[in-house]
Amino acid sequence: MAYHEQYSRYVGMVEETIEKLLPQTREDLPREDGIIPAHLCEAMRYSLLAGGKRVRPVLLLAACEMLGGELEQAKVPAAALEMIHTYSLIHDDLPGMDDDDYRRGRLTNHKVYGVGQAILAGDGLLNYAYECLLDHAAAHPENLRGLVLAAQAIASRAGVSGMIAGQSIDLLSEHMQPDAGRLAYIHAHKTADLLTAPLLAAACIAGADEAQTEALLRFGRCMGLAFQIDDDLLDVEGDAGQLGKQTGMDAQRGKMTWPSLVGVQASREKSRALWDEAERAIAVFGECAWFMQAFAQQLRGRKK
Amino acid sequence: MAYHEQYSRYVGMVEETIEKLLPQTREDLPREDGIIPAHLCEAMRYSLLAGGKRVRPVLLLAACEMLGGELEQAKVPAAALEMIHTYSLIHDDLPGMDDDDYRRGRLTNHKVYGVGQAILAGDGLLNYAYECLLDHAAAHPENLRGLVLAAQAIASRAGVSGMIAGQSIDLLSEHMQPDAGRLAYIHAHKTADLLTAPLLAAACIAGADEAQTEALLRFGRCMGLAFQIDDDLLDVEGDAGQLGKQTGMDAQRGKMTWPSLVGVQASREKSRALWDEAERAIAVFGECAWFMQAFAQQLRGRKK
Repeated sequence: MAYHEQYSRYVGMVEETIEKLLPQTREDLPREDGIIPAHLCEAMRYSLLAGGKRVRPVLLLAACEMLGGELEQAKVPAAALEMIHTYSLIHDDLPGMDDDDYRRGRLTNHKVYGVGQAILAGDGLLNYAYECLLDHAAAHPENLRGLVLAAQAIASRAGVSGMIAGQSIDLLSEHMQPDAGRLAYIHAHKTADLLTAPLLAAACIAGADEAQTEALLRFGRCMGLAFQIDDDLLDVEGDAGQLGKQTGMDAQRGKMTWPSLVGVQASREKSRALWDEAERAIAVFGECAWFMQAFAQQLRGRKK
Repeated sequence: MAYHEQYSRYVGMVEETIEKLLPQTREDLPREDGIIPAHLCEAMRYSLLAGGKRVRPVLLLAACEMLGGELEQAKVPAAALEMIHTYSLIHDDLPGMDDDDYRRGRLTNHKVYGVGQAILAGDGLLNYAYECLLDHAAAHPENLRGLVLAAQAIASRAGVSGMIAGQSIDLLSEHMQPDAGRLAYIHAHKTADLLTAPLLAAACIAGADEAQTEALLRFGRCMGLAFQIDDDLLDVEGDAGQLGKQTGMDAQRGKMTWPSLVGVQASREKSRALWDEAERAIAVFGECAWFMQAFAQQLRGRKK
């Protein structure tokens, strides 16, 4: 199967699973237990179904299939991970955080539903991710332990020593003097942790051994850091004329970036080295890794 | 053992467990994995250790002991539930929600740490609750299924068809015409769901049968609704002179309350009937329920 077909197949699975887990409801005051009020449900779906490449859930499904795990068992964890990614975007866009009005050309959640409901839609997606993960684990006694460990891998990477730690330090560092240690910490946690999460979760579901898990972790970490450097590079190249002095800050947002810290050339070299390492890490899986290799190459060559 | 001693014993267990799960860290850029950045950790602890009666975790521990379950297994779920309760208070106090500057006589989280960090401290506590629940389940293979079901019970009551649903409808209903169905929904979910959660979680940990679980659920539900009506009554009695017309709204907050909807007398009767039903529900456990009976009587007689 060609790469793009396979990617679409995975995206189809993710979106079908999301639709099953979170269908639009009708009543604002549901009479039965377990039904989400319509307005809250709509706000959650608005951001969860806003498109996007579904990078994280696709990685989870692809890694699970590569390892010979049960794809059926991986669908709910994949959808849950996308809920977690989405809640983090809703909260990131809020006033007091990045205060953005638009994301991917659409109004941000709080611009449509108000700040209060957007906070709750984010909280709701985060909590619902775990609700789904736990329901799913309880419904699969044949792999209860594997699914609990997968949920645990997601929780630890998404949490206060993972993604949330990265967001907190990022926010705390605005308008600070740039510093490579700080920037590396932010990228490792704010970005890379949610890319290693699906790989580790897949390893737990499929019962991968330690060497396989280690290789996946290295693949995800390198890819996550390279992805972030490329993002910064694309920004610089996009407004090269406007950048002016290289102060170690993203001019518009007051945030640190690699190009502004070590220069464009060194950033390009670092990115190249990281992508090479990611490809070497995944190579241990041989031909089974064809999709992962293609996935990395695709991300590596991306344009804004 | 006397009631107050027993209560203090449970509170001691909760606070000791919180301290173990969430000790203050030192570095803002931790070098090791799994360490929470100091500033984020401090913001989480600020609200989690702000005192409070620890009603929900105490209920969990007491119900577990009443059912003959392993108290050791109940401590982490109890602390996790308190993290969830605390995150909901931090987010409730934010601008765009209730926009409060003080809670229990102390500055609210966002007044001390800023809105962005308070959002993240709330997200962090919510995510960390599940991280702890999952770590704990994985560490107890002898009762893995019971602990997963306990976490599931907490997740479903805390979530988008539970507490968050109640918060969302509450927010949506501000300045609306009062309506008994709406008010009952808000109280059942915003308040009662987080009081049934510990009882159901304890039932899962202890492996209670269906009849026991049903009795605990009824106890929690009645107590939760009665608690909320009493809260409204205490508010009315507190500012009886200021209430003016009975519009179905809490004068200050633009929120619906029972006394303003059905009158003070009918609210008192409803509260009495609910407390009586709660006491009948828990009576099926006989003498083992002494603490729960005393607990309900204590809440019933509380003053502002």
